[in-house]
Amino acid sequence: MSSILDTFAFAKRIPATPSIGSTTVTKPDHIHLSFGFAAPDLFPIELLSQSAADAVTLYGRKALQYSGSGGPGKVLHWIQQRSLVHGIQADSNQILVTYGSTQGIDLATRILVDPGDHVWVESPSFFSALQAFRTAEAHITSFPIDGDGVRVDLIEEALLEAKRNNRPIPKLFYTMPTYHNPGGVTLSLERRKRLAHLAETYNFFILEDDAYSELNFTGDRYPALYTLIPQRVIYLNTFSKIIGPGLRLGWVIADSRVIEKMRLLNLGGSIGVFTQEILAELLQRLPFQEHIDRLIAHYRRQRDVLAAALRASFGDHVTFHLPEGGFYIWLTFRKDVNTSAFVQAAADLGVSFVDGKSFFVNPEGYHHARLCFSYVNEEQLVRGVQHMADAYFDYIGRTVS
Amino acid sequence: MSSILDTFAFAKRIPATPSIGSTTVTKPDHIHLSFGFAAPDLFPIELLSQSAADAVTLYGRKALQYSGSGGPGKVLHWIQQRSLVHGIQADSNQILVTYGSTQGIDLATRILVDPGDHVWVESPSFFSALQAFRTAEAHITSFPIDGDGVRVDLIEEALLEAKRNNRPIPKLFYTMPTYHNPGGVTLSLERRKRLAHLAETYNFFILEDDAYSELNFTGDRYPALYTLIPQRVIYLNTFSKIIGPGLRLGWVIADSRVIEKMRLLNLGGSIGVFTQEILAELLQRLPFQEHIDRLIAHYRRQRDVLAAALRASFGDHVTFHLPEGGFYIWLTFRKDVNTSAFVQAAADLGVSFVDGKSFFVNPEGYHHARLCFSYVNEEQLVRGVQHMADAYFDYIGRTVS
Ligand SMILES: Cc1ncc(COP(=O)(O)O)c(C=O)c1O
Ligand SMILES: Cc1ncc(COP(=O)(O)O)c(C=O)c1O
Repeated sequence: MSSILDTFAFAKRIPATPSIGSTTVTKPDHIHLSFGFAAPDLFPIELLSQSAADAVTLYGRKALQYSGSGGPGKVLHWIQQRSLVHGIQADSNQILVTYGSTQGIDLATRILVDPGDHVWVESPSFFSALQAFRTAEAHITSFPIDGDGVRVDLIEEALLEAKRNNRPIPKLFYTMPTYHNPGGVTLSLERRKRLAHLAETYNFFILEDDAYSELNFTGDRYPALYTLIPQRVIYLNTFSKIIGPGLRLGWVIADSRVIEKMRLLNLGGSIGVFTQEILAELLQRLPFQEHIDRLIAHYRRQRDVLAAALRASFGDHVTFHLPEGGFYIWLTFRKDVNTSAFVQAAADLGVSFVDGKSFFVNPEGYHHARLCFSYVNEEQLVRGVQHMADAYFDYIGRTVS
Repeated sequence: MSSILDTFAFAKRIPATPSIGSTTVTKPDHIHLSFGFAAPDLFPIELLSQSAADAVTLYGRKALQYSGSGGPGKVLHWIQQRSLVHGIQADSNQILVTYGSTQGIDLATRILVDPGDHVWVESPSFFSALQAFRTAEAHITSFPIDGDGVRVDLIEEALLEAKRNNRPIPKLFYTMPTYHNPGGVTLSLERRKRLAHLAETYNFFILEDDAYSELNFTGDRYPALYTLIPQRVIYLNTFSKIIGPGLRLGWVIADSRVIEKMRLLNLGGSIGVFTQEILAELLQRLPFQEHIDRLIAHYRRQRDVLAAALRASFGDHVTFHLPEGGFYIWLTFRKDVNTSAFVQAAADLGVSFVDGKSFFVNPEGYHHARLCFSYVNEEQLVRGVQHMADAYFDYIGRTVS
């Protein structure tokens, strides 16, 4: 049996083994600074429980059919209204509800990218997105970030050079302009405008992943790239960071013809209609702005605790940009440090983080690490950083001259 | 703006417009004999409402995270146990929970089919499956069915011929062996054995879509193809016909290496974990065999009502195979009848059905039509068939000599 399957030719797009991923450890008292999970204590459990029961009782007979009852329409309407708060205007045929933004990334990639097409990304970038591009057999090129987000000047140079040498322009550029995962940085207004201009001039799509945009710690707002050049942006967002990832619901906003093509790939199937019924009930009951304000206050405090712990335990051995929102602090060590070399030692001491190389297309980024402040509590943040520092100082004592 | 998008090169795999689909009409008293929907009165609404509330209350904090709490494990275990009843043994790494079997079809296609690869199907076949194969840019060949299911002898001839002429063997053969949609037929035991033998001999995968297998009206059981040659079958099933399609939950059973490759395409995302928590609670409370027996009794009665109505209204103008299970009766008219020609007239009289051509790869099957007996009530079945007959007799009075 095994020999038969070994000789069977799977589709070329399927890699033999997963090439990217994050560390996972599951000791009971393990401190997961690796998990980009929401804080479970902030889930609106009670409201959700009532919403679930009522959604089924009130609308069950229709809600269980393929297209659901009123829920999907209500969720769509909520997305439309909330988008307006962020300056995004979208008709209902410009919105597609998806199984999380992970599916949005996959659909956008599949409608745009043929094998060999070029996709440009940030370095570092989000690993599930990199995996989607690899699976589509894209040719991936990456551009560094700094404190103001991705280096749009380098993208411009590369585009000029591609044009000059008759080399391919990317089909899409994937970016997390606001509260970058893992970088923690936000793209400046000036760069946003420039990037929008480039997308228009060179005729490529921007895939704007805005998963963390609601988690704004400063009150400063930057316009979504979508608002700057809607016909050139496929905008992604998700309920994962504002309600809970287990719902597996997110959305895409784009030109109606882009949305139409995405629907074709869904083979006519509606998305999580039952879950949408429940979510619609919840959104009707939940005072959303209050809820978000509570999340923001919590995550901002957590960020501050993590930042202070890092300064206390690592001193000038690490630098980082203090994120204005989101879930992550991105550490930069000295160039000769390899964080992969002490990730296991740290795990043995009871803390996990994600080593830098996991976020890059090419073999690089070894002297970085991503810490997530969203999931564990304050005491664990402090203790986790201490464990990590113990592993780190032990490592450099042994190996770095 | 429109001109920019018009010139943008979408991926080649994306067709310009949907090429297949079913009629949908939404007048309030319209009789939908086209919809392959479950009977809403048989949904276990009350149990589901309690299950939903309790699942959230008991497990909410974990259930809302990416991997869920115990629910996904419990659903997997339920699938394993229920499969045993049907003679299917599978380890947990051989089972993948999916967003309905529609996603199962898509995943199987994407892991196996490169552009230009050959996929063989039945004619008629399920339109979402045909769409998945087209989107994968497969070369599709179809084989007719008769009262005993697909003509395996013709498949064997084609394989022999392909081998003799050094032409490509299919990557996969997609089949609905039990209570075929739309054909209503079931593959005989003899043909099952022969087909399994062919898959082994010629080294292709059988994609076995078993969506209706629980809805068995006769008590006669046929072994799943999976049980005959597990290493050559990707087996698909779904909660859509036994609980409700709105859940969007189904499953794949296959070799663990097939499952592993499917997981890669999911980009690490877990499937509907929140819905799985609720479903797990429901499955714990629901006396499943009683529930299925109730479904079977209902659908069998509905089938009989539809069959009697057809005989009464159409006389010898149609023939059909009385299905032993499932949702559909497949009508065959005289060869010169084109059911597409009176589908709109029937809709104007208040009944919808699916015209034959929608189920075929090539332009053929015009003298067929699919009626679904699962969704509407008995009175509507009778009235719907009368309306359809009115439209038909008016049509042949005008056009068929
Ligand atoms: C940048 C980014 N995009 C998308 C996702 C995935 O979100 P979803 O749960 O909506 O699939 C994440 C989650 O970690 C993320 O960090
Ligand atoms: C043969 C067949 N396969 C699959 C499906 C889709 O089922 P699901 O709701 O699980 O995606 C259907 C539904 O009509 C079907 O008839």
